[in-house]
Amino acid sequence: MSYKIALRSFKTLSYVGGYKKIRERHLKTHCAAVIGVGYMVYKQQQTNQAEMKEIMQFKNYMAEPITPVNQLEKNRDDMKTQMELMIMRIQAEFCRALEKEEDEDAKFRVDRWTRKEGGGGITCVLQDGRVFEKAGVNISVVSGKLPPAAAQQMRTRGKNFDGKELPFFAAGVSAVIHPRNPMVPTIHFNYRYFEVQDKNGVQWWFGGGTDLTPYYLNEEDAVHFHLTLKHACDAHDKSYYSRFKKWCDDYFTITHRGERRGVGGIFFDDVDQPDQQSAFSFVTSCAEAVIPSYIPLVQKHKDDPYGYHERQWQLLRRGRYVEFNLIYDRGTKFGLFTPEARYESILMSLPLNAKWEYMHEPTANSPEHKLMSVLKEPRDWLQLDQTHARTS
Amino acid sequence: MSYKIALRSFKTLSYVGGYKKIRERHLKTHCAAVIGVGYMVYKQQQTNQAEMKEIMQFKNYMAEPITPVNQLEKNRDDMKTQMELMIMRIQAEFCRALEKEEDEDAKFRVDRWTRKEGGGGITCVLQDGRVFEKAGVNISVVSGKLPPAAAQQMRTRGKNFDGKELPFFAAGVSAVIHPRNPMVPTIHFNYRYFEVQDKNGVQWWFGGGTDLTPYYLNEEDAVHFHLTLKHACDAHDKSYYSRFKKWCDDYFTITHRGERRGVGGIFFDDVDQPDQQSAFSFVTSCAEAVIPSYIPLVQKHKDDPYGYHERQWQLLRRGRYVEFNLIYDRGTKFGLFTPEARYESILMSLPLNAKWEYMHEPTANSPEHKLMSVLKEPRDWLQLDQTHARTS
Repeated sequence: MSYKIALRSFKTLSYVGGYKKIRERHLKTHCAAVIGVGYMVYKQQQTNQAEMKEIMQFKNYMAEPITPVNQLEKNRDDMKTQMELMIMRIQAEFCRALEKEEDEDAKFRVDRWTRKEGGGGITCVLQDGRVFEKAGVNISVVSGKLPPAAAQQMRTRGKNFDGKELPFFAAGVSAVIHPRNPMVPTIHFNYRYFEVQDKNGVQWWFGGGTDLTPYYLNEEDAVHFHLTLKHACDAHDKSYYSRFKKWCDDYFTITHRGERRGVGGIFFDDVDQPDQQSAFSFVTSCAEAVIPSYIPLVQKHKDDPYGYHERQWQLLRRGRYVEFNLIYDRGTKFGLFTPEARYESILMSLPLNAKWEYMHEPTANSPEHKLMSVLKEPRDWLQLDQTHARTS
Repeated sequence: MSYKIALRSFKTLSYVGGYKKIRERHLKTHCAAVIGVGYMVYKQQQTNQAEMKEIMQFKNYMAEPITPVNQLEKNRDDMKTQMELMIMRIQAEFCRALEKEEDEDAKFRVDRWTRKEGGGGITCVLQDGRVFEKAGVNISVVSGKLPPAAAQQMRTRGKNFDGKELPFFAAGVSAVIHPRNPMVPTIHFNYRYFEVQDKNGVQWWFGGGTDLTPYYLNEEDAVHFHLTLKHACDAHDKSYYSRFKKWCDDYFTITHRGERRGVGGIFFDDVDQPDQQSAFSFVTSCAEAVIPSYIPLVQKHKDDPYGYHERQWQLLRRGRYVEFNLIYDRGTKFGLFTPEARYESILMSLPLNAKWEYMHEPTANSPEHKLMSVLKEPRDWLQLDQTHARTS
């Protein structure tokens, strides 16, 4: 598995393209990381039980895994283990990548928590930084028993479950990053794995997505973002990107306002094809595409100039973000209506500050108006890119 | 009916008690108003059709009634008419009372709107004032047809409706006032009347409530507020206040946090007893109790000193207000999920600014902590008052 991780780190590199200077910087960092992973592979083959434990405790993770290490070791090939280790790694990589963009003293606060009924999570939040106003990166690994109706609610396209109280397992990573500079977009991603056991055996599926919410539209950024996600999808199924791009536009809709939350990305649920390992590999690619899709945009814009006007607009759009998350988002609703839910981990997605003005309307042809027209009618960003390429 | 209005204005005065200076000021204003109403009664008996129209257009309302004036005149005794005129009056009285507390140039913006399927509303918003950061006072008078399931959703305790597409009528006034000074509480109220016609005839009922959301607990204020509501209730049914006080505490619960939105007030739904006119009279008393329950608190605290710390706490509590309104409030949900809803009128209840901090916890024994303990365990404010009286 460590070999696979090494391979994936190499793959991550290939997505960075498009921002050459940044790519070079990434290459240096990642080469070091890959050498590190290579060393781990070597070590692992050689070590005794004690050393293996140390590796499994992954000093590089944000905290100790939720599942006891000896259990993870015993079930190394189980998808539950693979998923937990993957989301732990993604969480740590993403937190480190964000911290690198921050002032030195701005670090993630790490809260490892457990759930009475089984499992727990690790919530990492960086608040009031110079670059990030609020950044939350959460993993959770939970298990227990669910009535069939509740189990069904966990998927978009309900499958019938047979039985009374169904044992379930759910593991996922999710993050929402609200930068301070209005020229840096907000990103959200979430990748998750479910298992429900009924009379007919174990049913499993993956879900997830990554989407971008700019305050000011930068078409080049939107294209870069979508292209990075498309590369991640294409490596697994050429039909994925366009299907999941549309799913994303449909899902992140603030219905009462007739507008999207942002410029989209990808979103999917109920992925149980072609087989478990391939589906996991696809989801891993998506999760690994987050850094190269987003960090270059942070680096590009974090020092852009802006004023009071732009900040006010950002706060209004953050109000819309709150509306979507609290009214429509299935994950938030499902989370909050779960008894004994850790609401602080669910609501870490909300911005530090938000604003609601009655009847706010951007002036015609303003940059704010330009964003709104894209939110009202989602674009096919990559077709646009091809058109650009043809005409230039 | 004008005679009744005059009587009601007199009744309003009797609730003002408790804040003597304010009471005197109110008396002067209200006496003038009552003389005005008396004059109207006199005029009405004497006038011809044209003059009556002028009175019915009520220059004192925020805008022209939603129902055409000739229709209102023709159906003067219909509850639909009585309710529309009552909510128009309450809206105007409350807006004027708020404007009086503001700087001279801070006035309500008035938007009169109509609905394709029938009816419309008048939305009044005062934003960014010196005293009120955001104040919204809305009336709506709507009619159309509903499937039985939707009609049923409009009441808490479902009654079965018989028929396919049911003609309905709904009229209500609602307001949320978010002051700038954290020492002034937020108030919300909503009074509404429904009619649904099915095969067995017309079913009607009233609903409503008034509740207070302080940022810093002032027990005297809470007692005054509850006492004013109790007086309004007691005049109609001695059992109302305690029943509707409990209903309010139960309703305004932010379930995932295990806390109430504020210090409560009254809340009720499905009131169709003892008869239509008595129920209307009760609801009118409640609506008229808003000014004497709240305006004295604004006057008392609007110039209280406060600093950055208190403002930040107010913003955090406003975040909780948003959580309640977007996740739990039936009116907001019902409104937003209605096709062609005027979302700006529904969401005027949201504060101008709100904040979410991860894991915010007030320090022990702080004023913020004192508020939280009351939000976690609602008090019986008036019993407390009696105890005080006995021991003092």
